[in-house]
Amino acid sequence: MTTIAVIPGDGIGPEVIGPALDVLDALGLGVRTDVLDHVNAETYLRTGTALTGADLDRIRSSEAALLGAVGDPRLSDTAYVRGVLTTLRLELDLYVNYRPARLWHDRLSPLRDPARRAIDCVIVRENTEGLYSGIGGGTRTGTPHEIAIDVDLSTRQGVARVLEFAFSVARRSVCLVDKANAVRNGGQLWQRCWSEAVARHPDVEASHLYVDTAALRLATDPTAFDVIVTNNSYGDILSDLTAALAGGLGVAASANLNPVTGRALFEPVHGSAPDIAGTGVANPFGAILSVALLVEHLGRTEEADAVRRAVAAAVAAGRVTPDLGGTLSTKEVGTVVLTELRRP
Amino acid sequence: MTTIAVIPGDGIGPEVIGPALDVLDALGLGVRTDVLDHVNAETYLRTGTALTGADLDRIRSSEAALLGAVGDPRLSDTAYVRGVLTTLRLELDLYVNYRPARLWHDRLSPLRDPARRAIDCVIVRENTEGLYSGIGGGTRTGTPHEIAIDVDLSTRQGVARVLEFAFSVARRSVCLVDKANAVRNGGQLWQRCWSEAVARHPDVEASHLYVDTAALRLATDPTAFDVIVTNNSYGDILSDLTAALAGGLGVAASANLNPVTGRALFEPVHGSAPDIAGTGVANPFGAILSVALLVEHLGRTEEADAVRRAVAAAVAAGRVTPDLGGTLSTKEVGTVVLTELRRP
Ligand SMILES: CC(C)[C@H](C(=O)O)[C@@H](O)C(=O)O
Ligand SMILES: CC(C)[C@H](C(=O)O)[C@@H](O)C(=O)O
Repeated sequence: MTTIAVIPGDGIGPEVIGPALDVLDALGLGVRTDVLDHVNAETYLRTGTALTGADLDRIRSSEAALLGAVGDPRLSDTAYVRGVLTTLRLELDLYVNYRPARLWHDRLSPLRDPARRAIDCVIVRENTEGLYSGIGGGTRTGTPHEIAIDVDLSTRQGVARVLEFAFSVARRSVCLVDKANAVRNGGQLWQRCWSEAVARHPDVEASHLYVDTAALRLATDPTAFDVIVTNNSYGDILSDLTAALAGGLGVAASANLNPVTGRALFEPVHGSAPDIAGTGVANPFGAILSVALLVEHLGRTEEADAVRRAVAAAVAAGRVTPDLGGTLSTKEVGTVVLTELRRP
Repeated sequence: MTTIAVIPGDGIGPEVIGPALDVLDALGLGVRTDVLDHVNAETYLRTGTALTGADLDRIRSSEAALLGAVGDPRLSDTAYVRGVLTTLRLELDLYVNYRPARLWHDRLSPLRDPARRAIDCVIVRENTEGLYSGIGGGTRTGTPHEIAIDVDLSTRQGVARVLEFAFSVARRSVCLVDKANAVRNGGQLWQRCWSEAVARHPDVEASHLYVDTAALRLATDPTAFDVIVTNNSYGDILSDLTAALAGGLGVAASANLNPVTGRALFEPVHGSAPDIAGTGVANPFGAILSVALLVEHLGRTEEADAVRRAVAAAVAAGRVTPDLGGTLSTKEVGTVVLTELRRP
């Protein structure tokens, strides 16, 4: 039997995971869930570790994992969030962060030009190196001569594998985004791996943009993009930008993948949103669409599409939470999606 | 007599510098120009160096410098562009990259919500360190085990001075943008310098965003921002994003400043645009508005405002180049601005 490890987390995490699991359940795939509801800020505050080796083992012995959100306003040092998210990504070697951005309804676009609103692209973000390498340090700390460095790390295997994945999911085109004109060492390595990947995929249109230009082009006409592949840091930034262009973080889903081992972790892009936690208005679409990605990962493309159609129908009917201009609660939106799913 | 060093550069650089210098001339400030028209790709191709020590001395002995654009499609290795831009920034220790973004006319905004279009903010970008440190290297190059690193450098004096500048130009608020939750060493240094700067300026509203959230918020509602201060890399990305929200690169001006020594270099944010070079349709506003920044730097605020009013009038009348939806040439737009300037 397929087992999914579930980490509801903090704040709105558990609130959006509820409806997301209802959707998973309604698909009747016979999936078992292993809920790790102690992986949260409470545990971190009590024990100093939110995610233990035993937790990782449970996740490793599952088919995939689903995470709500982690983060707590009492923990300003951010070590906790990093300790959960980055540890999961690195320990499971989830080298792809797959972040689709699709406009579910014209109404949700912040863009003025109707012809440029229909964003439907994917950010493929390298997820295990770059500025998230954790390498670096500081010296003369606390003095006027303090220096701090963080290492932006690129490895050939790390770059080559994420580029290969990007080409494997392209429908039309892949655009490499880097800053090889200024950040040279990694830039040159990416460029060389890129030339090789492009040569291996003559059927896919390939283009290249510097990251500043990519941000400008996305804000101007996001419909020009299919797959964008980039490093960890630029992927972090550009995927929030594409989320904004697709209606906000409320609808953004993501997959952290290792396409070789098959390990996978799915999570909405939003955080724990302490400002609205407990008020019942968190948008569950990010989590529900993460379930769609999970179901697709399990090979059930038809069911994944059904979930997406149900979300699109709810959005079209305006049966949405306040962040999308609606008046429904998290639970009510969950019910709408379930009803849509059951429609013949 | 005040001397301005002028580097027209490549591509559309000389085309936009023409009208920009006409505007400077029309202000009657009695400024002398020292034109370094050999600092370009031709010279680099012939001699291997575009910017010599003697050039730097001429620039150093000027009151300020004005640059058109550098870049040439024949030079794909980007060492030339970096050799000019980064050398100027580092050699003259121009630690502030000041990039205002202001919507000159409602028509130019890509945003749908009329209430959110009127962007009027400044990106204060650290301009001498971060990922542009030039520190790093690679090993096992060309093998499957190749590794490349680029060092993201933060120094206390480098961070403290740019934060101080940001507060000095704030009208309402300063927002620090970093990624201290993931890029820790520099992140912590920035955060500590930030706390001190905030304490020194209790009169200015201070806020903080992670860079991903900042990109999302800018695309959603740029009117929320006054001054954004950030590192070299994020400043590069966010200033192209704000340029897009203010009507595109055609209207984006910038100043590279050392507020302590008074050294300054002004340049449009756009590049040499080889695709339109020679066709006579390059938008001169970026260069003309860079002259406005230069004139302001010389202490002539009134004249600077007059230039901006002239640009605003040209935009309002639709007397603009094709990138802004008009039909005029670079030269014609220059004439329009001169005419507006002479209006009593
Ligand atoms: C919380 C933070 C460390 C994380 C990241 O930058 O990876 C988040 O922004 C994301 O994009 O998943
Ligand atoms: C050309 C490039 C090195 C430069 C930079 O990144 O600084 C440019 O994009 C800019 O913003 O002035």
